[in-house]
Amino acid sequence: MPIVTIQVTREGTAPGASSTTREQKAALIKGASELLRDVLGKPMESTFVVIEEVDTENWGWGGLPVKLAAARSG
Amino acid sequence: MPIVTIQVTREGTAPGASSTTREQKAALIKGASELLRDVLGKPMESTFVVIEEVDTENWGWGGLPVKLAAARSG
Amino acid sequence: MPIVTIQVTREGTAPGASSTTREQKAALIKGASELLRDVLGKPMESTFVVIEEVDTENWGWGGLPVKLAAARSG
Amino acid sequence: MPIVTIQVTREGTAPGASSTTREQKAALIKGASELLRDVLGKPMESTFVVIEEVDTENWGWGGLPVKLAAARSG
Amino acid sequence: MPIVTIQVTREGTAPGASSTTREQKAALIKGASELLRDVLGKPMESTFVVIEEVDTENWGWGGLPVKLAAARSG
Amino acid sequence: MPIVTIQVTREGTAPGASSTTREQKAALIKGASELLRDVLGKPMESTFVVIEEVDTENWGWGGLPVKLAAARSG
Repeated sequence: MPIVTIQVTREGTAPGASSTTREQKAALIKGASELLRDVLGKPMESTFVVIEEVDTENWGWGGLPVKLAAARSG
Repeated sequence: MPIVTIQVTREGTAPGASSTTREQKAALIKGASELLRDVLGKPMESTFVVIEEVDTENWGWGGLPVKLAAARSG
Repeated sequence: MPIVTIQVTREGTAPGASSTTREQKAALIKGASELLRDVLGKPMESTFVVIEEVDTENWGWGGLPVKLAAARSG
Repeated sequence: MPIVTIQVTREGTAPGASSTTREQKAALIKGASELLRDVLGKPMESTFVVIEEVDTENWGWGGLPVKLAAARSG
Repeated sequence: MPIVTIQVTREGTAPGASSTTREQKAALIKGASELLRDVLGKPMESTFVVIEEVDTENWGWGGLPVKLAAARSG
Repeated sequence: MPIVTIQVTREGTAPGASSTTREQKAALIKGASELLRDVLGKPMESTFVVIEEVDTENWGWGGLPVKLAAARSG
């Protein structure tokens, strides 16, 4: 019965994408479920995976919104 | 001072609705608050209820996005 | 596939109990699952309920740990 | 490595704003990171801050959606 | 900057263990970080993984605490 | 009605402490509530603060449990 929650910033990492693509989300869901199966023996259909996309201005690191933090740490 | 967080997929369950309706949300808030009052004696005004709606492609079960999982388990 | 997370302070509300009892937890689980069934039509076996008990010194309200806040608002 | 999650209703508190402004979010990120630095000595760049904005109809208090609850408690 | 939160019931899945072992936790941390690296290109050192162990009486499924639910669905 | 959740590893940062002290928790609660008051004008008594302490073996960074990660990055 595991629950895996994946929080990521709402930005693209695939060419031309402005946020996580449908295919990437499916890969995250598959990978997270397989991880719980392989490490803890949890059946695939007993695992929930929830992906939360967070606007970059809503995510802070180093006391700054991530885009500013990334620019500063160049 | 309880906090009840209800995570559901962003899909309609009422006729013609494409997501949880305002009335359904009010019923969830009322029901969750009454549950904490009836079981633990918590005053209604001491309970926070937060409803999080998650896009279906962001929710996985059985290693698949829920829509695919539901189709497969038809 | 709903997930209901119930966060409560680790204190007793039943006579002689120092925290939420097993019976109260079962009632919270039953009530929350029935709420999602009755309001959104979600099958009971599709709902996860997670209860998080939080030490009172880890819960703040009004800028104070809850025990102090409760004492102050007498 | 702290994580600070700030959940607020999606409503404006600055003049003319309909939700939390970019500047307010930056101030929340800065303040939360400094708080963990000042109280627990955590380096600024070790702290993640995540701001979650919740629609007012998705937030309940006193058994009612917050806008109704606020109107009722005038 | 992803955050992966893994919630599991506090029970053993390795021989003789009564809860998730240190080695299993390390494997979950490694696997989750690698998943975000492989799917979204996130550097390993930019990912936080948090494992939450939940007592079985605090986890409900099908309207019952999981141990009862498992016994019933034998 | 903000909720501020502060997740920290269960380790001491005050002399002789093995985890976050009662005084530090009170300071975190006060500081977080004041932050929401000062930035968003939220009344102190409308803010919940929840502190979650996580065992170090349950927190990962860089693909490793934090204690190993810290040792490795010296």
